[in-house]
Amino acid sequence: MKRITFWLVAVATLAGIVAFTARASRHAEGEAAPIFGVKIPPGYRDWSLISVAREEGNFNDLRAQLGNDVAMKAYREGKLPFPDGTIIAGLHWNCISSEENNKVFGRSQSFVAGSAKNVQFMVKDSKKYAVTGGWGFADFKDGKPADEAMHKTCFPCHQLAKDRDFVFTRYTP
Amino acid sequence: MKRITFWLVAVATLAGIVAFTARASRHAEGEAAPIFGVKIPPGYRDWSLISVAREEGNFNDLRAQLGNDVAMKAYREGKLPFPDGTIIAGLHWNCISSEENNKVFGRSQSFVAGSAKNVQFMVKDSKKYAVTGGWGFADFKDGKPADEAMHKTCFPCHQLAKDRDFVFTRYTP
Repeated sequence: MKRITFWLVAVATLAGIVAFTARASRHAEGEAAPIFGVKIPPGYRDWSLISVAREEGNFNDLRAQLGNDVAMKAYREGKLPFPDGTIIAGLHWNCISSEENNKVFGRSQSFVAGSAKNVQFMVKDSKKYAVTGGWGFADFKDGKPADEAMHKTCFPCHQLAKDRDFVFTRYTP
Repeated sequence: MKRITFWLVAVATLAGIVAFTARASRHAEGEAAPIFGVKIPPGYRDWSLISVAREEGNFNDLRAQLGNDVAMKAYREGKLPFPDGTIIAGLHWNCISSEENNKVFGRSQSFVAGSAKNVQFMVKDSKKYAVTGGWGFADFKDGKPADEAMHKTCFPCHQLAKDRDFVFTRYTP
């Protein structure tokens, strides 16, 4: 009977951990972005890497795109459109010259991520966001969403990638 | 009794999953790199992102650094030296101009990750790698380790970052 009690306690503990984790990952916190109502998804900073990019010109930033499990599975299976539940995060940092790295290489060639510019999200919900290709868009700076005017620019721009379900970034293994 | 049997089966299944996952993540596969004997750590491609970089000059690549759980915890707590068990992965891709992104921006400014050049690992084991600052180094291209001569260059270069436990990359949130 002692053994059975032990196992029951073990199961209850595990069930508690699973339930807590599920709750924690379900409820986004903070202010919602205008138009689409997207909040910052908890834990996104630990999602898997999709790819990286460098934008010169006015942006002058370094970028990384991260994906939740649904996004990564779709990317790796090469399936389009992305299924509901997909979330893609775009992290943008100011691109700065790395003097310490340049010393190592003996020439000015090294650029690294500096301060964070903003973080953007694309959330797939084909019913909720039917009029914008099934995607909700959000842009945050220091945890605060950008204004409505800025969020109106997301979909028109992403329409140029319509043949890739409105997603610019490709997965690089 | 039926309920107890159900829970016992549930526990056994969970225990099985946990044991399988532990096994899968413990045993690296493929050929070991010379000198340090480091193999490619399974699942590293899904580790958390530390930061990104752009190297111009002869490298001309885009880079991402990923860390296992031990690495990420140390980075986020700002603790040096990194504890044993830390593994940092450096993924390097050829940097290519993105014509499809340039069309969106209306100018030539967008660079993305192209084909993979190589992937490198730093593995912390202060006893095993005592003579190289506690770090084992490895460089792989298409799953095959580079030669011994190449691996002899790792530590002398990383010595320039001795005050940061021989690690160049800084974490960017």
